[in-house]
Amino acid sequence: MVYPGPYEQGEFALSEHQLRSYRNKGFIQLRGLLHETEVADLLREAKNLVTASARERRPEAVFESDGREVRSVFRGHELNSVFDRLMRDGRMLDVARQILGSDVYIHQSRLNLKPGYAGKEFYWHSDFETWHVEDGMPRMRAVSCVVLLDENNEFNAPLMLVPGSHMHYIVCIGQTPQDHYKKSLRKQEFGVPDPTSLGFLMERGGVQSAKGPAGSVLFFDCNMMHGSNSNISPYPRSNLFFVYNSMENRLESPQHGLQPRPEFIAARGADLSLERVAPTPR
Amino acid sequence: MVYPGPYEQGEFALSEHQLRSYRNKGFIQLRGLLHETEVADLLREAKNLVTASARERRPEAVFESDGREVRSVFRGHELNSVFDRLMRDGRMLDVARQILGSDVYIHQSRLNLKPGYAGKEFYWHSDFETWHVEDGMPRMRAVSCVVLLDENNEFNAPLMLVPGSHMHYIVCIGQTPQDHYKKSLRKQEFGVPDPTSLGFLMERGGVQSAKGPAGSVLFFDCNMMHGSNSNISPYPRSNLFFVYNSMENRLESPQHGLQPRPEFIAARGADLSLERVAPTPR
Repeated sequence: MVYPGPYEQGEFALSEHQLRSYRNKGFIQLRGLLHETEVADLLREAKNLVTASARERRPEAVFESDGREVRSVFRGHELNSVFDRLMRDGRMLDVARQILGSDVYIHQSRLNLKPGYAGKEFYWHSDFETWHVEDGMPRMRAVSCVVLLDENNEFNAPLMLVPGSHMHYIVCIGQTPQDHYKKSLRKQEFGVPDPTSLGFLMERGGVQSAKGPAGSVLFFDCNMMHGSNSNISPYPRSNLFFVYNSMENRLESPQHGLQPRPEFIAARGADLSLERVAPTPR
Repeated sequence: MVYPGPYEQGEFALSEHQLRSYRNKGFIQLRGLLHETEVADLLREAKNLVTASARERRPEAVFESDGREVRSVFRGHELNSVFDRLMRDGRMLDVARQILGSDVYIHQSRLNLKPGYAGKEFYWHSDFETWHVEDGMPRMRAVSCVVLLDENNEFNAPLMLVPGSHMHYIVCIGQTPQDHYKKSLRKQEFGVPDPTSLGFLMERGGVQSAKGPAGSVLFFDCNMMHGSNSNISPYPRSNLFFVYNSMENRLESPQHGLQPRPEFIAARGADLSLERVAPTPR
């Protein structure tokens, strides 16, 4: 959703036309927002982060269900100063503040990997459904920002999105177990939407894929229905996610008496404010 | 491979240009070869075949490894007269005879399903490697013909092929167990090519996907390296495979003392000759 904040418009805010498109479809992709030399740096840092966090068996590193490959690394911005700077970069932050109409903070950040030959699928889901139930996020006032670190193309299973699906809240049937995240981050079994609801959304909106060159940035609503296929292609597909949440939408208690998930998955810290930085001139 | 047979050229044979392209790349796609009303008939028959063979728990019906969805139905042409007619149709048969330079027979036929929301991936493989080892097929003188019963698009995980890979025989390391097909048809674990060999092929040839409207027909060499991603899109992707083998390349004993696989997977019957039929006029 777009919130009509009194928030001052930043240098890199979306145009009226772009904002309208985001409001209707629930996402917008800015092709080539980052320079290719920046992306090369980020990709190198990402590889280092994966290697280091896997070697140290850090909880932030989530492995595929076969235990062999790293599927995601959470909270990379606290482990790496380059990612920390990027999430405060005006090109991302101005858009997030504009869409959410307020100051924002990082609810979650993660590096999602789909290595060539081995990347597994992410079944259809809305992030908000999980964040609402398991993290106690009150309203749909968060936006995911995805930085494409590799080209996302027809072969390496780009994100697929259902335009307009952010307007509908699909309840997933079934009880959420305690410590669900330890399994669900590896392979989704509970909380997947039923085919009838999915069909309803897709008949209305169809499906679009977020293909684009490395350095493109995708913003999508926290309630967007999205997923992606497996990746057996030779082309790795690494994407960096920053989830911005409104400071006016901070987490409450999880629902149904669930225990809060760890800080690296859902931030509740006392001081979460972000200091904006301008992009480094090139 | 293309065999310079003395075989008489049929009405629907490829042009010189097309044949040269097939020789170099190892595949050729003929868009819209079948009329859309034919495809609608075939798709209906395919659905009936799946339902009936699953209900009767026929061995020809192979389920996904989770046991819930049918992944493939083998030997459909013996269970259904429409498929039987189609595999003898001049539009397919003339091309197969031309490529193989001889009379041909059906080594294997199968219907591969990737239902929307549920289709699983097929990892990279060359069919010939299996047919050579497990079925005793002497030489690379067979061609797979794939009839697209649904549109194959960027979302529903079309076949991916490595142009030129048919020129290289990649040995898969590891011992093939007896009755391997009972598992391998559901999920490939043995006999997958190593990443180094795959990388070698892909650096040379890249990857192409066989997207196209329903009714398109793809011919590809038995030694083509190919695979496909999972399909969580809402769009089902049903493809019908006819594998034509040269009558001069009939099966011998499997290698390494393996037992022959069942007739519905690898035909050894006494009379396998095909009587050509002309397409029904429309």
